[in-house]
Amino acid sequence: MHALNRRPAALLTTLLLSVVAAGPAQGQSGPPDELPAAQIRALTRERVPEALSLYREFLSLPNVAGYPEDILRLVEWMEFAFAERGFLTRRIPMKGSPLLYAERPNPAAERTVLVYLQADGQPVDPKAWLQDDPFEPVLKERDRLGNWQEIPWNSLEDERNPDWRIFARSASDSKGPMTQFMTAIDALNEIGFVLPYSLKVIIDTEEELGSPHLPEAVEAHGELLAADMQLIFDTPLHASNEPTVTFGARGISMITLTVHGPRVPQHSGLYGNFVPNPVFHLAHILSSMKSPDGRVLIPGFYEGVAIDDAVGEQLAAVPDDEAAILRQMGVARADAVAPSLQESLQYPSLNVRGLASGWVGDEARTIIPATATAEIDIRLVKESDPDRLVRLVREHIEGLGYHVIDREPTDAERRQHARLVTFTSSFAYNAFRSDFDSPPGLMARAGLEHLYGEEPILIRTIGGSIPIAPFVDTLDVPAAIVPTVNIDNNQHSPNENLRLGNFVEGIAMIMAVLSRTPP
Amino acid sequence: MHALNRRPAALLTTLLLSVVAAGPAQGQSGPPDELPAAQIRALTRERVPEALSLYREFLSLPNVAGYPEDILRLVEWMEFAFAERGFLTRRIPMKGSPLLYAERPNPAAERTVLVYLQADGQPVDPKAWLQDDPFEPVLKERDRLGNWQEIPWNSLEDERNPDWRIFARSASDSKGPMTQFMTAIDALNEIGFVLPYSLKVIIDTEEELGSPHLPEAVEAHGELLAADMQLIFDTPLHASNEPTVTFGARGISMITLTVHGPRVPQHSGLYGNFVPNPVFHLAHILSSMKSPDGRVLIPGFYEGVAIDDAVGEQLAAVPDDEAAILRQMGVARADAVAPSLQESLQYPSLNVRGLASGWVGDEARTIIPATATAEIDIRLVKESDPDRLVRLVREHIEGLGYHVIDREPTDAERRQHARLVTFTSSFAYNAFRSDFDSPPGLMARAGLEHLYGEEPILIRTIGGSIPIAPFVDTLDVPAAIVPTVNIDNNQHSPNENLRLGNFVEGIAMIMAVLSRTPP
Repeated sequence: MHALNRRPAALLTTLLLSVVAAGPAQGQSGPPDELPAAQIRALTRERVPEALSLYREFLSLPNVAGYPEDILRLVEWMEFAFAERGFLTRRIPMKGSPLLYAERPNPAAERTVLVYLQADGQPVDPKAWLQDDPFEPVLKERDRLGNWQEIPWNSLEDERNPDWRIFARSASDSKGPMTQFMTAIDALNEIGFVLPYSLKVIIDTEEELGSPHLPEAVEAHGELLAADMQLIFDTPLHASNEPTVTFGARGISMITLTVHGPRVPQHSGLYGNFVPNPVFHLAHILSSMKSPDGRVLIPGFYEGVAIDDAVGEQLAAVPDDEAAILRQMGVARADAVAPSLQESLQYPSLNVRGLASGWVGDEARTIIPATATAEIDIRLVKESDPDRLVRLVREHIEGLGYHVIDREPTDAERRQHARLVTFTSSFAYNAFRSDFDSPPGLMARAGLEHLYGEEPILIRTIGGSIPIAPFVDTLDVPAAIVPTVNIDNNQHSPNENLRLGNFVEGIAMIMAVLSRTPP
Repeated sequence: MHALNRRPAALLTTLLLSVVAAGPAQGQSGPPDELPAAQIRALTRERVPEALSLYREFLSLPNVAGYPEDILRLVEWMEFAFAERGFLTRRIPMKGSPLLYAERPNPAAERTVLVYLQADGQPVDPKAWLQDDPFEPVLKERDRLGNWQEIPWNSLEDERNPDWRIFARSASDSKGPMTQFMTAIDALNEIGFVLPYSLKVIIDTEEELGSPHLPEAVEAHGELLAADMQLIFDTPLHASNEPTVTFGARGISMITLTVHGPRVPQHSGLYGNFVPNPVFHLAHILSSMKSPDGRVLIPGFYEGVAIDDAVGEQLAAVPDDEAAILRQMGVARADAVAPSLQESLQYPSLNVRGLASGWVGDEARTIIPATATAEIDIRLVKESDPDRLVRLVREHIEGLGYHVIDREPTDAERRQHARLVTFTSSFAYNAFRSDFDSPPGLMARAGLEHLYGEEPILIRTIGGSIPIAPFVDTLDVPAAIVPTVNIDNNQHSPNENLRLGNFVEGIAMIMAVLSRTPP
């Protein structure tokens, strides 16, 4: 849709050779990890127009996980984009969409850094977006009433107000970070900067499906993916929007719960008071699982989590303005799982992300619904055994007197069991956590400290899930996350966006980290 | 779509005059209410092909309540159909769709009978129907596995298996009964039978919206609608599918409950355990309202209902096969409101007809939803004060610590109230109940006893709601319902249908009742 500013092929070849070759490139002064902060800033500034056009083109490619044809087009686009930046690429076929692997080996370097990026996005409900097409990015500024108003894209030619935002699916999660990564590579390529390590990149195309095939792929391609450390450019910055390094993320399991009422919906008048309504059964199940103040009531759910003094200090050092977060969210009080936001994220969570029975609104009709369904996600922490938590939930429901099956009920089961639930679960990925002083942690902290002159915010565990555990656990590669996007980006929801200032700053952050010599 | 078998205009005029004229018509023997049962049967048989064509045409007219243009087309069609059958018609304009009034005065008769019919239908969710278009009726027979398989419409030319069914929206509720009524009138017209009373017909076009303007219209047109008794051809037969007269129906009020969580959906990982999820609040509210075995727990909800010995005998005389009903519904146990189905219908009910929050199934996304909504309907009985029941529900929710408002919350309310609910309600119509020995009851019972040789099943109150209370209460016209459709017709749900045998039998039932002399 928007033409990439493609380099002539001859230049590309030269660049590729100069980059892959060992030793400092021409025109570079000082050791490679001493790229001055001012130069990083200058390179970033120059690159912004091209980066915005790349971003706009990338955002216009539909990427909803689970639409394999869209994902294949996306993979083709990325293969070209990475090849253009001096990478050798390879598709790793999987049962679903292929992973994309890219590398720039540096035979002279001792270390190998593996970077994880995500290409796919969450589903879209176009009706809920304030723009025609979530894959047609639009630029917006906030008016005096606080509402986002579209302004022409070419406004960016004259001005780049950091508070403007770009709205599109995956703007922040995670085409923004990938564009920033590609742009940082472009800038380093431009000055002939040789990365002081071998760089491997793995691009996930099923992250929003829970990366169902990734653990298997990591297992099968252990040698290809072997590295000394892993860096992840994904997830939002701390809510203060200040430079952040994150050392862990919660994992995720999902449960679908369907309570059965009558075989087909029944007239709510003819049978109301006689035919049981599955909604009330579902309400009893859900309300027995969690107290109104948000604590999971299933015994053992939080087992194993321990917050000692050292951890307590790490958590307390994060400068959260919880009152501001709650105000922004429009809620009066936080859940009572733990006394602080950071501490609450050290515990597994039980969330209902979707609920459906019968019809609501204009489509409502006076029936006793046949089923009532809850979609549940459990966020896991490093101390959680995912199978155990799902089992606890299942046993809890059985303990309430429900007959729990994993498929549609038979006639015989309907006759026999007045409380009947279909329970299916899937395990997406485990939590991971690396140390603040792990090699990727030291590299990321050094890069950001070099750029900003002070230590970034260090976060022990973010609440969200990224499929890093297979690398950490199976390949024994410690990991650190360098986030770049604003936390209020409506990630996973309609009207996802990225703040323009974050888009620009993230290029510099990633360049600062990539240009460090790893420990 | 399917051409009505229209009579030439000249014949129509003749017929109209002959019918309006007093006195016995030519060719008729005996008093007018002694039309022999065998003749009713013969007239019915002859009429079936024409009746099926009329039915098919009628079903093909979209009639979802709340689509005024569709309803206007329907009203035009009915105006023509009733004029063709010797009625004078008049539209009664209302705030929504117009009511249709039709009459055939008989100046020689002492009594006036008011018939209530319903023309509009429930919304359709075409995805849930096993046919392309719910307004394109299809004929089906059950295969050996019990599944309904479409067979060509013209199969009806050779055979009319009573167990075949016609599937379409409003097949049973209530275009079936209206077609049967029109056909009964056609048959009586054909033999020049003069109805021994003045006949008035009122046709509702907003019944499925709860007839919001009907009480006002009844009040405003008291003289036009004045009658000695009212007959209603609507609602299903007793589950045994045996001849039935019903003397009451529950009323209905509706509540929409929306629990507020964060202003917009939040990422379930980033904030799970911190930002409250409105689903759990809704679950607490609903589970506190009703026990898992179906009894409303709100004090005073059932107040005023008394089942004395006489009533107990009336209820016990209904030959319910509750085990068969439960088996057919696919549920193991009935709600525990009362010891029998008939008794349970004498109490008000609290039903959740729809539930929605976030997204489920393929569209599920890992968020903390912004809202969780329940659509509630309360079925009222004659002893219920509708305002009081809605107030009890509202006070119950307030008693749980919720701040209850009737609109979207303001920022200040969000900051102040951790438990925040938007509660709106609407009152549709009240319950009604007439005596077994009321004039319409005696007329309906006599008609069916004449046709079948035995007293029909007498039902004190059906659970469903029809807007008859304004006639009974405001105009003081006692009412009785003569149902004709099979109870397993999927009324209000996808794949609504009418059993062919019921379609035919209902013509005879209505003819038998209409041809009686009212007491």
